[in-house]
Amino acid sequence: MQRAIQDTYPEDFSHCFGCGRYNEQGYQIKTYLDGATTVTRYRPAPYHLSAGEFAYGGILASVVDCHSAGSAAIFWMQDNRQIVGAEPSPRFVTARLEIDYVKPTPLTDLTLIGTAEEIGKRKAIVTTELLAGDVVTVRGRGVMVRVGQF
Amino acid sequence: MQRAIQDTYPEDFSHCFGCGRYNEQGYQIKTYLDGATTVTRYRPAPYHLSAGEFAYGGILASVVDCHSAGSAAIFWMQDNRQIVGAEPSPRFVTARLEIDYVKPTPLTDLTLIGTAEEIGKRKAIVTTELLAGDVVTVRGRGVMVRVGQF
Repeated sequence: MQRAIQDTYPEDFSHCFGCGRYNEQGYQIKTYLDGATTVTRYRPAPYHLSAGEFAYGGILASVVDCHSAGSAAIFWMQDNRQIVGAEPSPRFVTARLEIDYVKPTPLTDLTLIGTAEEIGKRKAIVTTELLAGDVVTVRGRGVMVRVGQF
Repeated sequence: MQRAIQDTYPEDFSHCFGCGRYNEQGYQIKTYLDGATTVTRYRPAPYHLSAGEFAYGGILASVVDCHSAGSAAIFWMQDNRQIVGAEPSPRFVTARLEIDYVKPTPLTDLTLIGTAEEIGKRKAIVTTELLAGDVVTVRGRGVMVRVGQF
């Protein structure tokens, strides 16, 4: 079975609240390659409320953020003919995050689909569609920068 | 003493994970008018980590998000010669959020300062500087939309 990119992050970079496998209080999201795109699934907690009964925008921004970092690493490895899990993962952090809340997002299973807009040596731009069912409720764009020697 | 805008939000709009006074699991941020700007103070939890030992960008985006909503309400009231606490608060939600991570943000007391870029009848744009000490580490811009009849 394919490994999530977050499960291959270097030990020292695996405590992120959104995606670190060692952060017990965190969301521990997992991102996978799926053809030409990346996929993350996430279900907000019942208390992740927004102004009304919908999902809190800050949590959605958080998930887009870490999904973008994971996607950048996956796309970078793909561009460099590396296999996730077979080689050390690069680690990207966020320089800029843009989130458009297109529609209210229900508190249900959500799917994030990432697409590479630009993959460079140290910079990657990832666009994301966040879907509830088959409805896009959020669009994201992350400008990611590679850190460390990985 | 001045009341925080979030403590005057309508009951039905006070369960937000970022700023709802009735969300016991949430951050319950408080935003105040301070001259021509708005101010929110927030300290991330020790487990709100990013890739390294710094503060998680998703939490910072979340705090900017709710600070922008609170600031939009405050600026809107100010524009309409209303006093926070003396009259029902309008409630704004986020249409678009832009976050620039200028520098890594330490896990310490943070201050967010909001400025009105544009305040209309139903739309407001708020720019935010997030500071650790006197260093700006994050810049935010929220395009906010007024909801409900408030």
